[in-house]
Amino acid sequence: MSVYLDWAATAPPDPEILEGAVRVALDAYGNPSSVHESGKNASKILAEARERSAKALGVRADTVFFTSGGTESDHFPMLSLLQRPNRGTIAISEIEHPAIIEQAKMLECAGWKTVRIPANREGFVTPDAVASSIREDTAFVAVMAVNNETGAIQPFADIGRRIIEVSAGRKKPHFHVDAVQAAGKIALKLSAEGIDSAAISGHKIGAPRGIGLLYLAHRVEPFVRGGGQEGGMRPGTENLAGAWALSMCLEKSAQALETSNASDVMAFCVKTLTSIPGVSVIPQSRNPVDGRFSPYVAQFTNGRLPGEVLVRALSDRGVYISTGSACSSKKKTRHVLEAMKVRAEDQKNAFRISIGNATTVADIEALAEALSACLGQY
Amino acid sequence: MSVYLDWAATAPPDPEILEGAVRVALDAYGNPSSVHESGKNASKILAEARERSAKALGVRADTVFFTSGGTESDHFPMLSLLQRPNRGTIAISEIEHPAIIEQAKMLECAGWKTVRIPANREGFVTPDAVASSIREDTAFVAVMAVNNETGAIQPFADIGRRIIEVSAGRKKPHFHVDAVQAAGKIALKLSAEGIDSAAISGHKIGAPRGIGLLYLAHRVEPFVRGGGQEGGMRPGTENLAGAWALSMCLEKSAQALETSNASDVMAFCVKTLTSIPGVSVIPQSRNPVDGRFSPYVAQFTNGRLPGEVLVRALSDRGVYISTGSACSSKKKTRHVLEAMKVRAEDQKNAFRISIGNATTVADIEALAEALSACLGQY
Repeated sequence: MSVYLDWAATAPPDPEILEGAVRVALDAYGNPSSVHESGKNASKILAEARERSAKALGVRADTVFFTSGGTESDHFPMLSLLQRPNRGTIAISEIEHPAIIEQAKMLECAGWKTVRIPANREGFVTPDAVASSIREDTAFVAVMAVNNETGAIQPFADIGRRIIEVSAGRKKPHFHVDAVQAAGKIALKLSAEGIDSAAISGHKIGAPRGIGLLYLAHRVEPFVRGGGQEGGMRPGTENLAGAWALSMCLEKSAQALETSNASDVMAFCVKTLTSIPGVSVIPQSRNPVDGRFSPYVAQFTNGRLPGEVLVRALSDRGVYISTGSACSSKKKTRHVLEAMKVRAEDQKNAFRISIGNATTVADIEALAEALSACLGQY
Repeated sequence: MSVYLDWAATAPPDPEILEGAVRVALDAYGNPSSVHESGKNASKILAEARERSAKALGVRADTVFFTSGGTESDHFPMLSLLQRPNRGTIAISEIEHPAIIEQAKMLECAGWKTVRIPANREGFVTPDAVASSIREDTAFVAVMAVNNETGAIQPFADIGRRIIEVSAGRKKPHFHVDAVQAAGKIALKLSAEGIDSAAISGHKIGAPRGIGLLYLAHRVEPFVRGGGQEGGMRPGTENLAGAWALSMCLEKSAQALETSNASDVMAFCVKTLTSIPGVSVIPQSRNPVDGRFSPYVAQFTNGRLPGEVLVRALSDRGVYISTGSACSSKKKTRHVLEAMKVRAEDQKNAFRISIGNATTVADIEALAEALSACLGQY
């Protein structure tokens, strides 16, 4: 029996929703852009998926666009900058996902300047920090909703308002929120003033891989073009079964927000793990019932083993966790922990626990037992 | 009972392969980038899918990258141009898919110049036409393998060689082949000299939507960046189930190439339809057994009804066809037919028949009957 505690990397697909998606794929196989009956049927299901997603997110259906995933949704507003006649500055937080950080470097190749918005030692990006980072020529700001390594919920609504304030009298920078670890996991008000776009990934909440969602409060000129699908915003034959599955997962996770015992399970996790000698949570100020953090993700460190060694040792015992982002699993640096000024030794030995609605206290007990054994063994 | 003859827009998913993909999604749900056992298992299946795809395409596994679809694969080499220090010219054929044509316009915004390579009246882009379009500063050339509206098989291997010849002594332009309507449908030698990249879409050959393949003869610096997946070439959590399904579909369609009776069915289709008063094939020089055209796609016109009206009238009778590309279904212009200098009236009344390996002579008979009825009725 294995214990999967790496839900932030990817969630096991929801079997019922996956089954439903297969039915959609087989029954409504027409191209939603086709004008015949088979296409119209597909187009109708696509519209329903958009409505369902919008309702679950509390936004208008015409602000919802389906993409191939979180990365593409993060890229959309950044690539859109490329068609502007003038270049300027983009401000991204130090704790963003590589999809934002690495793409920002490419925008630098195209003549854009980048400013990094610092995070504090607890891993939060404050509205003040954002305000101080905005210049006259800032065209784009990105601060994620929930950090994928620590679970820290960023004050994105306050940041949105603050950006409006500091840019009074001139064109407001586009404010993008990477909501990949937030959607379906925390109360997420995307329609808050000042938020221009947000990225959501399907496979983090039980949908198949290859489907994502882009929220656009208002239309932005797309840089990537093609067949005119998604109202001209996102080219490529629409992934109907994926969109349907994502909409169902958004609906299901929105409903689960009220009933989930993830908070209790994570509180138990933080309490239990930090009672193991040498293990501490990052930031150390996080307490077991700390509402400033997503109950689905927590970062820890330990006094004995490098994170990577620990991940492998736990894997041998059937417990699957990660160090940080799966996307960074092959990198040596821990940019989020570095931004938080975590000690080098603690960075090296850090590990992430991320849970889902199906995770139980028994899973955490199994983790704690395996972790104690691993740390005692070496 | 409906008759589906719009396979070039999208193919019905292969039910067995779809079922297999669901098993992969459920059994190997780990993130292939994760270092634990669940991730390693996923990573192994991904490597197998890459090997299987490469074998079916007759190329090396390290030249195969999974993407979200044909459009993204078409975009990859074009977007890669954006990080070059100098701008230049890109040469694209007049009959390319909107994924190429529309993206070329965006590259113009970024300072690149575009040259259109003309097609002849039969819808072919000759090596001579390509050679004449290449300038000193041409950095990129795109000519598709099989046109999605007429089925015309372009001489891409000859074009590849010709590009090498005309660029002797300086940096060869990157030659990209949109092989979306070619993969699994004609003998396709991507490893031919001079071809630098090719785009393949999964859903055109029975795989689910949301998966595509990019062939890169040699590494090209990606412009779109993120988590470092696909050897740093394509960011975003890998769509494992999709990649597996695509690899199976490529294998199956490669095997079917030898046994398929698509050539006979299409020959029957061209012969039968052109025997209906007022109906002709485009180009008129195409004969029922014309090896210069894909047996899976043919364009026709008629003397009575606008293509769009005909598509709807046939749909009412349960026969699903299209005018041209589904991606262009909402556009008024027919750029491929325009490039072929087809008369305006014939452009307006044009319609496309596209078949799959499951299409039978009986399907074509049903089409012919419905078509005769529609044309007689008005």
